[in-house]
Amino acid sequence: MIEETDRGFTLGDGLFETVRVGIFDGDPQDRLQPHFDRMSAGCRVLGLPEPHWDDHYREILSVLETVTTPRAALRLTWSAGPGGRGLDRPAEPTARLIITIASAPLPGPARLVTAKTVRRNEMSPASRLKTLSYLDNVLAREEARAAGGDEAVMLNTKGYLACAAAANLFWVRDGRVFTPALACGVLPGITRGHLMARLPVAEVMVGQDALKEAEAVFLTNSLVGIRAVTSLDGKTLPSHPLVTALAGKLPV
Amino acid sequence: MIEETDRGFTLGDGLFETVRVGIFDGDPQDRLQPHFDRMSAGCRVLGLPEPHWDDHYREILSVLETVTTPRAALRLTWSAGPGGRGLDRPAEPTARLIITIASAPLPGPARLVTAKTVRRNEMSPASRLKTLSYLDNVLAREEARAAGGDEAVMLNTKGYLACAAAANLFWVRDGRVFTPALACGVLPGITRGHLMARLPVAEVMVGQDALKEAEAVFLTNSLVGIRAVTSLDGKTLPSHPLVTALAGKLPV
Repeated sequence: MIEETDRGFTLGDGLFETVRVGIFDGDPQDRLQPHFDRMSAGCRVLGLPEPHWDDHYREILSVLETVTTPRAALRLTWSAGPGGRGLDRPAEPTARLIITIASAPLPGPARLVTAKTVRRNEMSPASRLKTLSYLDNVLAREEARAAGGDEAVMLNTKGYLACAAAANLFWVRDGRVFTPALACGVLPGITRGHLMARLPVAEVMVGQDALKEAEAVFLTNSLVGIRAVTSLDGKTLPSHPLVTALAGKLPV
Repeated sequence: MIEETDRGFTLGDGLFETVRVGIFDGDPQDRLQPHFDRMSAGCRVLGLPEPHWDDHYREILSVLETVTTPRAALRLTWSAGPGGRGLDRPAEPTARLIITIASAPLPGPARLVTAKTVRRNEMSPASRLKTLSYLDNVLAREEARAAGGDEAVMLNTKGYLACAAAANLFWVRDGRVFTPALACGVLPGITRGHLMARLPVAEVMVGQDALKEAEAVFLTNSLVGIRAVTSLDGKTLPSHPLVTALAGKLPV
């Protein structure tokens, strides 16, 4: 349980990571370490104390032992912890880790809707982090759902493509693969990184026309791996051999 | 206590209000009603169920009875409530109200520092609401504190003046009073509204030079009323008779 004065709750002051886990996985260390590293880096950006991962690792393993399905989501939440009234953090914040498990069935391909009511704030460091202040992403997703989609495309305040509400965004044009540059307000996704280490991907700052002109669009995140996109703003997108091949090479 | 899956905690999905209360206050209804109205309006913007204030009022009064000081802060937090994994809200969200009281000593005049590392996202509806996703404001305040100030000036993504991290922003030039327009990404503050109902105030979209050229700068919020500003980015600002007079006419 969380205290009512916890700054993660009162102000969204904290970070989270989600990692796919399951009963058929081997040693989770390799899978977890990039998430530990990203959360620690986020703490340095936000000025929060960093988790002592060696101290938390045993507890994380004991939670993983409760997993009974092939596909579950481990969520690590790092809250700035209890605080007084107002925005100022305590002189010595006592941040805390919350470890939860949820079921995470593999979703089908995505139907994307471009969010019009909310833009991603690339002029905040939070736009490159998974923070507990995720309301803009919630609003983008709500808008996509209301329009008959199941995931949103988010543009940044300049009108450049940024990401999906809970995934990184990629597209294919003339056989080349593109993704928005981190400076557009983009989380440095773990799966995004794996993909870019195996394949030439151009990081670009471009508007939504680039997506409309693409031959294929796909998403990546740590829970789904590579997720095909079958429609964009109501327009059907055909399946694409490159996306199918990538999904096979980068299983989750 | 808050559940670990509460969307207010996991995603910053919710709203809050803070109201000054104290043992010497009369009937709190007049003071509370504008905050009830603003939170209800925010729920409509975010797509959250609205609080049934009649049902909550008795509990709020019983919390107010515990106040033993002339100056305390009542905080009303409206969280989207328990949720599953991921961004999508449950089909029937069970939002909940959390009522807390904290001491709220009257601060001295403010020393403002203009935040350089984070901008306010006027292209999100959240920029005109007090949401549980307040990390950008926390970061702006941290930056101001690190630079020797005690409150931040936030610019929006276009470079226009927006607000302080936890207050509305006003300034005086040639005897006229100015404040950023709501479209700049500004909370429609209750005290801001009281002031504008009594005094001609020009709502403008201008850059930070307007503040540098001002004869006086002041802040408003519901806990402090009118708060004088004695320095801006290290430059001392003299006291101003208009600000002193307004503070006297609009006591908190």
